[in-house]
Formats: sequence, structure tokens, C-alpha cells
Amino acid sequence: MATRISRPEFEGHVAPLIQDILDTTTQYNLPENARQWFEASLKANIVGGKMNRGMSVPDTASILLGRPLTEEELKHLALLGWFTELLQAFFLVSDDIMDGSITRRGQPCWYRQEGVGMIAINDAFLLEASIYNILKKYFRSHPSYLDLIELFHDTTYQTELGQLCDLITAPEDKVDLDNFSMEKYIFIVKYKTAYYSFYLPVALALHYLQLATPHNLKQSEDILIPLGEYFQIQDDYLDAFGSPETIGKIGTDIQDNKCSWLVNQALTMVTPEQRKLLNEAYGRKDSALEAKVKALYNELKLEQHYLKFEEKRVGELREKISAVDESEGLKKEVFTAFLDKIYKRTK
Amino acid sequence: MATRISRPEFEGHVAPLIQDILDTTTQYNLPENARQWFEASLKANIVGGKMNRGMSVPDTASILLGRPLTEEELKHLALLGWFTELLQAFFLVSDDIMDGSITRRGQPCWYRQEGVGMIAINDAFLLEASIYNILKKYFRSHPSYLDLIELFHDTTYQTELGQLCDLITAPEDKVDLDNFSMEKYIFIVKYKTAYYSFYLPVALALHYLQLATPHNLKQSEDILIPLGEYFQIQDDYLDAFGSPETIGKIGTDIQDNKCSWLVNQALTMVTPEQRKLLNEAYGRKDSALEAKVKALYNELKLEQHYLKFEEKRVGELREKISAVDESEGLKKEVFTAFLDKIYKRTK
Repeated sequence: MATRISRPEFEGHVAPLIQDILDTTTQYNLPENARQWFEASLKANIVGGKMNRGMSVPDTASILLGRPLTEEELKHLALLGWFTELLQAFFLVSDDIMDGSITRRGQPCWYRQEGVGMIAINDAFLLEASIYNILKKYFRSHPSYLDLIELFHDTTYQTELGQLCDLITAPEDKVDLDNFSMEKYIFIVKYKTAYYSFYLPVALALHYLQLATPHNLKQSEDILIPLGEYFQIQDDYLDAFGSPETIGKIGTDIQDNKCSWLVNQALTMVTPEQRKLLNEAYGRKDSALEAKVKALYNELKLEQHYLKFEEKRVGELREKISAVDESEGLKKEVFTAFLDKIYKRTK
Repeated sequence: MATRISRPEFEGHVAPLIQDILDTTTQYNLPENARQWFEASLKANIVGGKMNRGMSVPDTASILLGRPLTEEELKHLALLGWFTELLQAFFLVSDDIMDGSITRRGQPCWYRQEGVGMIAINDAFLLEASIYNILKKYFRSHPSYLDLIELFHDTTYQTELGQLCDLITAPEDKVDLDNFSMEKYIFIVKYKTAYYSFYLPVALALHYLQLATPHNLKQSEDILIPLGEYFQIQDDYLDAFGSPETIGKIGTDIQDNKCSWLVNQALTMVTPEQRKLLNEAYGRKDSALEAKVKALYNELKLEQHYLKFEEKRVGELREKISAVDESEGLKKEVFTAFLDKIYKRTK
């Protein structure tokens, strides 16, 4: 029987990881002021997220094995899970600078904290580099060591390409809806979010368990990428139509000129007058203009369009999942576990 | 007989590399606007430097082999050389943001170019990621492929630790000479500069030629790190005492609050009054105060101290080089080639 890791249990694996990372600086005689800085950055930036990505690594492995993990497996898979959180921390620290964000996980963004500023860029680099340092420490003799490295390299590159496209398509200070298209939107979502959030954790578990056959990786990708797209589209939907009390924040995508599924959907449907309204009101730091965009979204029945999309996509996913070939050790349940957490979520 | 690569010949290898990098985006269907951006970033940031680091990879290999390189060796070693330039580009693009620099290689820094801004952070990431992408393309079946990856990982981490220490020891906007010490200075120089500039190119050539025995790597490190320190100390010396016409720029280390060899040397020698002057005048954007610091440097005879240091260090290096054990394929000439280029340089 597969088991699920609890949040506190997963969180218990982060302190030894931070200690391992700090220990790597000892061989270099890193001066004490720099060591303290590094420790503060690690503590501020790795912990405090939802940890869904990280936890899905041991959870996926337990499903694949069909039994609870041994203590050693758990230790290794939680570590691989925390590497996905480290990778995300690297992205978030730097994305916040690039986006000029104000808060992250209820705190000021790292670069906005006292005395940090642009040093946060190098701190982000160190988060990324720590993945490979600790991977080497614990997995150097693992038969998939090189595959694990290349998986992180590839996923990092994919995410950076997605981020590039997002940054130049939807700059916060220059609204031009001609830049947007459903094609670009899908590219951004796929590469900026789906690979590292959904494919990476499953591929890590497969590699760790020596089940990463080309066929299993391909089947996983074919399900997890459309699933990741669905997750992000849902996120965009919740930003405008979710309840702020439930999702824990007030959506700002319209004012922030975000290349959201909703605006791209709207752009495929608008009359010339509605397009004119969108051009004038989208991406402006003005709540009256934002309200006009929302009114247009309602006029275009985007909520219904979203719900229709959701049913269609979930139907397709269930079909693909039921067709999964389990002969090389992959399990359908890996994917239903993800889908069940996402379908009809309200936060 | 070993041969040296010429600057134009080495430069001729960059266009195919840029094309290879851009080709990796095709499999992802990167939208055209993003592809163009990436191309502009590659062209602006990889080319235009002195290329000493890059060229030393094929040069070192030719010395190790004692003959000119074959066409295939040259292609591979020039590529590895360009990876060191890519790594440097990753550092320089981001350092310029962190330091608030204005120009680089005679052009506005990348982040200050029209429309770039903080997107430069992600562009820096893509420069780093491109190393591993192209390494995989050409070296995946090389017996040292994993060693090459780990060498780049380690060197990147070392450089980032050096940069962290530099950033928090010498912030441009907060002068506090109590932060400085010769010990921290040596840490910064060693990790921020010496490893990637001197050890990395030689270690790459050794790995490529299958000569990277632990003994050869250790001998190289033991010479190239003190040599790299000497190079940077000389750089600091030239910033204040070199001729602006020869070095091609006017030194700004004093006004920029740089943790330079000169100020650290001065701090070990000053009287309480001279220390007071340094506290008040160092790191200020004021040329009268800068002149006072320079006058103090002259009073303390720092130029003579530097020249004494130089003779001592070069003597030690020549001694170490003459003691190099060539039995596992290392050659003394690898190191004399570096030293001869550095000793008594004026720019």
C-alpha cells in the first residue's frame, strides 16, 4: 500500500539539508559574515511554500513501489523533493526581482529585505548551485546520477526559456495586447510551469527507482504537461473568479498585464469595440479600469468557457491515464493522485 | 611542437557555438520574438572580451601534447574554451547589475541596454544553462563527460561564494573599512577570480586529454591559484599605479569602495591618523578625497610594497613550476606560459 508523506514529516527533512549546504562552505573557509548571510538566505527562501512539488517526489515513489518507503528511500526521495523546492526558490528569488514583486509567502520578497537588494541575484545562484553540490554528496554512486543532473539541467533550461518568453511578451510597464496569443500563452505555461512543477518530480522518482525507461518518461510527459497547463489555466481562472478569502490573496493579473489564459481567451472572442476597451483598460494600475475588464470577462462568459475547458481537459486526461501502459513499472495512480488534487480546487 | 591559437582563429569558433545554442530552442518551438532576444543576448555578451581564459584551453592542450592540435581536437578544445567565456559572461552580466556598473567592454552593460533591464538576470541564467546544453551535445560520449560537468559546477559555486563575500564585504554604498581584511581579500580573489580564470581552463584541457589524474589536478591547483591571486593583486595595483593610456581605463577602485589589495595592505600599515583619513576618504565619489587616498598610498610606498610582493610571489611560482612532476603527463611549460603573460604586464 502506498503512503503519503505528511507536511510536517517532509518539512523535517529541510534542516539537515540546510546544514549539508552550509557544511560545503567549510572546505572553502568561507568567512563567517558570508556564512551567516548564506544561512539567512537559505532559511528565508527554501522554506514556507506549499511544498506540493517537493512532497510529490516521495509520494510518487511510494505509489510506484506500491508500499511505504524504507527509511533510506524516504531520506533520499525527500531530499530529491527538496531539490525541486531549491530549484523553485532559485526561480522565485530572481523572478521577484524581474517582476518587481513586493511580497512572497507573506513576507517582503528577499531582494526587498533589509540590506539585501541586488545581492539577491547571487543568492539565487547559490540556491541553484546547492542542488548539484548535495546531489553529488548523496547520489554520486547512484546509477542514475548523471540522469538526475541532466534532468535538472534540462528542466532549468526549459523554465528559463518560458520565463524569457513571459518577460518579453508581458512586460508590466508596456501594455501591447498584440504581443499576446494563445500559442505564446501555452508555450509560457508549458515551459515556465509545467515541466518543473509536474514532470520533474515524477521523473525524479522514476530515475531514483530505476524505472525511468524512455517509454515511462514519455508516457509521464504526455500526461503531466497537459495536466500542468490545466493547473496554470485554473490558476489564472481563480485569480479573477476565485474567492479571495479562499485563495488567500486578491488577484492582480489584470492590473499586472499578465499574459493570462483569460485575456488570451477574451482576445479570440472580442468585437472591435471590446478589443478597444481591453487595449485601454488591461494592464493599468487602476481599479476602475480593472473592473471594466472584469465586466467584459463576464459579458464574454469566460467563467463558463473555463468550466467547459476544464471538463474537456479533465476528460482527456482521464482517458490518457486509463490508457497508461504499466508493463514497465509505471502506475496510473501516479497521475490520478495529481489530478485529484487539482480538479475543482478552489485555492 | 606546441602551437598557440590566434585571436581571430579562436573567435572563428564562436559563430557555430551561438548557432548550436539557438538550435536547442527549435525543439521547444520557442516563439520567434524570444529567439531573437536570445540571439541578441548571446551576441552582446559572449563576444568582445580579451578571450584570454578561452584561448588558454586549446593552448594548454597543445603544450600538454607537445604538438599542434588536430582539427577535431582544436574544435573541441576551442569549444571548451568558449564555455569558460560563457561562464564568464554569466558572471559579468549579473555582476554588472549587482555592482550597478555603467559600461562593459566599451558598450553600455547589457542590463542598461534599451528595453533590457532586469530581464538581463534571466539572460544570464540562459548563458549558464547553454554551457551544459552544448557540453551534452558534443561531449556526452567523452569518458570525462561527468568530470567536465562537475568541474563547471564546482567552479561556478566557488565563484559565487567569492562574489557573495565580495558583495557583503565591500558594498558600494556603505563604507566600513572594519569589514576589510587581508584574509577576506585573499578569499575573494581566490574564489571569485583564480579558480575560474586560471584553474578551470587547465583542468578542462587535462580532462579532455584524459590527463586529469588527482596528482596532476593538485599540482595545477597549487600553482594556478597563487598565480591567479598574483594576477588580481597586479590588477588592483594597475588600477591605481598603471598608466590609464596603457590599461585603457581610469581606475575607480578607490571611489568604488573596492576591497582592493592596496587598501588592505594600507590598513596593515597605517597610523591612527592615517586610518582616520582612510575612513573619511575611501569609497567616496569625490575626486579630491580619492587624491588624498592616493597620496597616502604614495606616503606608504605601496608601489614598492607591490613590487616586492611581485618579485617574491614570482620567485615562489618559478620554484614550484621547476618542481612540477611531469611523470603523469603534466608539463611545466603550461604554467610558464601563464606566468610569462602576466609577469610585469602593464595592461
